[in-house]
Amino acid sequence: MADEFELIQHYFSEVGSDRSGSVRLSVGDDCAVIAPPAGYELVVSIDTMVEGTHFPPGTPGDKVASRLLGAALSDLAAMAAVPACFTLALTLPETDNSWLKAFSTRLSELAIQYGVRLVGGDTTRGPLTLSVQVHGWTKPGKALLRRGAQPGDRIFVTGTLGDSRGGLETVLKHIVGEQVPYLQKRFYNPEPRLDTALLVADFATSAIDISDGLLADLNHILQASHVGAMLNPGEMPISQSLYRWVGEKKAREWALSGGEDFELCFTVPLLSEPKLAWVLREHDVAVTCIGQITDTPGIVLAEEGEIWPVEPHGYNHFSDKGFKQ
Amino acid sequence: MADEFELIQHYFSEVGSDRSGSVRLSVGDDCAVIAPPAGYELVVSIDTMVEGTHFPPGTPGDKVASRLLGAALSDLAAMAAVPACFTLALTLPETDNSWLKAFSTRLSELAIQYGVRLVGGDTTRGPLTLSVQVHGWTKPGKALLRRGAQPGDRIFVTGTLGDSRGGLETVLKHIVGEQVPYLQKRFYNPEPRLDTALLVADFATSAIDISDGLLADLNHILQASHVGAMLNPGEMPISQSLYRWVGEKKAREWALSGGEDFELCFTVPLLSEPKLAWVLREHDVAVTCIGQITDTPGIVLAEEGEIWPVEPHGYNHFSDKGFKQ
Repeated sequence: MADEFELIQHYFSEVGSDRSGSVRLSVGDDCAVIAPPAGYELVVSIDTMVEGTHFPPGTPGDKVASRLLGAALSDLAAMAAVPACFTLALTLPETDNSWLKAFSTRLSELAIQYGVRLVGGDTTRGPLTLSVQVHGWTKPGKALLRRGAQPGDRIFVTGTLGDSRGGLETVLKHIVGEQVPYLQKRFYNPEPRLDTALLVADFATSAIDISDGLLADLNHILQASHVGAMLNPGEMPISQSLYRWVGEKKAREWALSGGEDFELCFTVPLLSEPKLAWVLREHDVAVTCIGQITDTPGIVLAEEGEIWPVEPHGYNHFSDKGFKQ
Repeated sequence: MADEFELIQHYFSEVGSDRSGSVRLSVGDDCAVIAPPAGYELVVSIDTMVEGTHFPPGTPGDKVASRLLGAALSDLAAMAAVPACFTLALTLPETDNSWLKAFSTRLSELAIQYGVRLVGGDTTRGPLTLSVQVHGWTKPGKALLRRGAQPGDRIFVTGTLGDSRGGLETVLKHIVGEQVPYLQKRFYNPEPRLDTALLVADFATSAIDISDGLLADLNHILQASHVGAMLNPGEMPISQSLYRWVGEKKAREWALSGGEDFELCFTVPLLSEPKLAWVLREHDVAVTCIGQITDTPGIVLAEEGEIWPVEPHGYNHFSDKGFKQ
């Protein structure tokens, strides 16, 4: 198959499901047409993954698909938006049918799972690069923003942190072992916290998804909200797998600055905590309080009576080296 | 400047203007938030350009910006949508500040000209690749589609055809001469026919923008509408510059299949032609009738009593070679 149109027709004309019911015209014309549900606002985000920067050369198509769509939808979760549809800009060095089949099959599975439809895209020739733009809906003024955190708010995260960084390490160093499948699953298959986001939206004052690392992303909230934070590193939620594989010290380090967990970090006023806890328990969702917002700029760690400041460093494509070097 | 966040802040936080007034939250959070005008539908398209495939290595940032945004907005023109905003996924091999300055300055100029605002993006490290998603609005059911052409409809195109292919040739072969500046301008600076599209929308039965070449793109209309076309190659609108540079034969060939003209091709019922002509004259817009829709599948050329079929070939990234080979 060597034709752009055949390729789109074959692999991408029927991907996902339109649970929001808003897609009027999908793949196959110059544009897609989407009917906004009356009274809702549109929420959009675009995310790119480059072979050699975001995943190692030779990564199978199914793993690229799950990281790509999971990471992109995670941005909608960070805004507490209901996902609707997405577009895909796919740059390929050549037409590798088995890779494309694995990619589009997994993309379809996940798109159906999350109720989003692929409505358009562009297929071009070049080094393997994939951009996904996701589209979702929120009630007017209800999108969760980075700004809004107030001194005294509790800081929560979903899931466990650092697993993705651990998974990456096992991929790069070709490590095998008991904990590896779980950690690699966390790296290759991020789960956007879309449902949890909708539960916490009524209580949260700010939110972000953890893509660059907890410290770096929390710092975005702090800067946007003009506040600071005090974290208890002993409260970081760490999976048994990560703990067993690298021990507490490294696990904590990766939990704080590992990046690409695609968990949510959000802030909730102290007074709203009981209601939030009740709602989350009703829905069997666990989150972890890791610290609180302060009025002193910057982030400090506090444990056993000791307090020390930390730099909010995290993964940054232009500072770090990627997989190629 | 080596930091992704600084780079976005410096070059991309204030690009363009929101003439549609629908942007609620722009660059700087996990997502952008856009308020759809009541009763309108959202029209979206994503387009990618890759160095070495869509433009020669070393192309200055301002030229990349104008081709990128012009080509992307041309898809909104093809649907007769009013442009609103766009996102940019920018993959860069390194931080080249002079290139970025030229790129973002030109991007800003054009975004203001067309009334669109850059509302979000992603900046990553890798081979130079740029994806733009454009967002526009149409009244429900009023988007111009590829399907809808009827036998007897007249086929029109805007502007002149083949210039962009000529411009590309002068770039690739380092040609200088009197006609070169005009042709290169047509290659590097496509002008999306947004205003003309809104004028013809009430009369047209189908439309597409010419990105792959007239024959290839017209063929998309024909296939979507289950009809055929008869074209008069003697009626192709060809600029004086192209005609003088390569003569009639080559100019016609490029007009028919050169690609990336980003002019509109649209069909209009015979009975609506007088009204269309009146509206276009009122607005001082020239379009050219190049043939008509038939009920016989395929495209035939007809001139001076002769009729011969043509293959609807055009530029195709996976059949053609790009600039690298």
